[in-house]
Amino acid sequence: MSSTVSGGWRIYGPRTLPAPLEAALLAFAEHGYHGTSVREIAARAKLSVPGLYHHYPSKQSLLQGLLELTMLDLVARCEQAVAEAGAKPVAQFDAVVESLLRFHMFRQEQAFIGSTEIRSIDDGYRDTYVGLRDRQQRIVDDIIAAGVAGGDFTTTAAKGAGRAITTMCVGVSTWYRVDGAMSPDELIAENLGFARAIVGLTA
Amino acid sequence: MSSTVSGGWRIYGPRTLPAPLEAALLAFAEHGYHGTSVREIAARAKLSVPGLYHHYPSKQSLLQGLLELTMLDLVARCEQAVAEAGAKPVAQFDAVVESLLRFHMFRQEQAFIGSTEIRSIDDGYRDTYVGLRDRQQRIVDDIIAAGVAGGDFTTTAAKGAGRAITTMCVGVSTWYRVDGAMSPDELIAENLGFARAIVGLTA
Repeated sequence: MSSTVSGGWRIYGPRTLPAPLEAALLAFAEHGYHGTSVREIAARAKLSVPGLYHHYPSKQSLLQGLLELTMLDLVARCEQAVAEAGAKPVAQFDAVVESLLRFHMFRQEQAFIGSTEIRSIDDGYRDTYVGLRDRQQRIVDDIIAAGVAGGDFTTTAAKGAGRAITTMCVGVSTWYRVDGAMSPDELIAENLGFARAIVGLTA
Repeated sequence: MSSTVSGGWRIYGPRTLPAPLEAALLAFAEHGYHGTSVREIAARAKLSVPGLYHHYPSKQSLLQGLLELTMLDLVARCEQAVAEAGAKPVAQFDAVVESLLRFHMFRQEQAFIGSTEIRSIDDGYRDTYVGLRDRQQRIVDDIIAAGVAGGDFTTTAAKGAGRAITTMCVGVSTWYRVDGAMSPDELIAENLGFARAIVGLTA
């Protein structure tokens, strides 16, 4: 994504992953990490196995590269959305929730791998990945805390609210269909309303 | 579970799956369906491969058996919770949300397989499984519709609210930890509060 264009966080074109990561994404989504061979990924990427290893020395490095690019894209989009929303917690809240919803509607496959293959990350990388997830959650949590402090949000369970909202937004990736009855913007408005209700912002 | 004991829907002992399904559950949770061999499941179940096949003729039949028992348990618990709650939509709503939350806290591994391995179900069985999931969702949706009709719930997005609440409850399985800071009952009270906010029941 380009984070230099205003509103760039809202724009989702086709994926632009490096070919080996795109191939790994499709293979993992279909058969899971442990059900996928490097040979299969190389074939999907139209590379020889040595050619693939030249860029990614192991199946694990493909998983890590994919998860990390996904989380960095998510965090960058959320940070841009919040930055463009200005200083008020309510506007920041709307922006970060919209950003989370859009990401999980338009990057469903990556979201699926991010949710399901944490189990497959090698121990040495797990802390890095969890750190990125925590950073994403902290963006949401800090905004809610500011909104509570300023009297915009009435929730008495700020931490749980942040987790519930993230869970709801991430979960959109499990049911959203491009050919569904409601448009993306309608779904975003509806689910933003639920997120506002959770923090006690009914205005 | 015993559905004949009042409140039985709230009671979660250790799992009582048949040994082959328990073995399949643990193997699928660790390596995924496609990353698991029948040999591995047999070894975990302390059965020979022919002995395993005697009860379950294929890896697919193990997956189907596991997913079906899981969904039938979930639906049975929700139906019992609702039946015991009496006729009022608000009480039924609280009961079904509590039941969904408990299930996804205490049956995390099964919930994980249910969320991640739908991709691995053979076409011939998929409709049956989706039918069970729809039946579960309809329990929630019907209660919300009755609450809206009776003026208890103020939401104008009943269908989306039902989906968001289910998504939030299912998602609890991704973050709940037995050794977390809050007790199960505290977490249930908090998340029930969020569910009530989503349908516009703030009383």
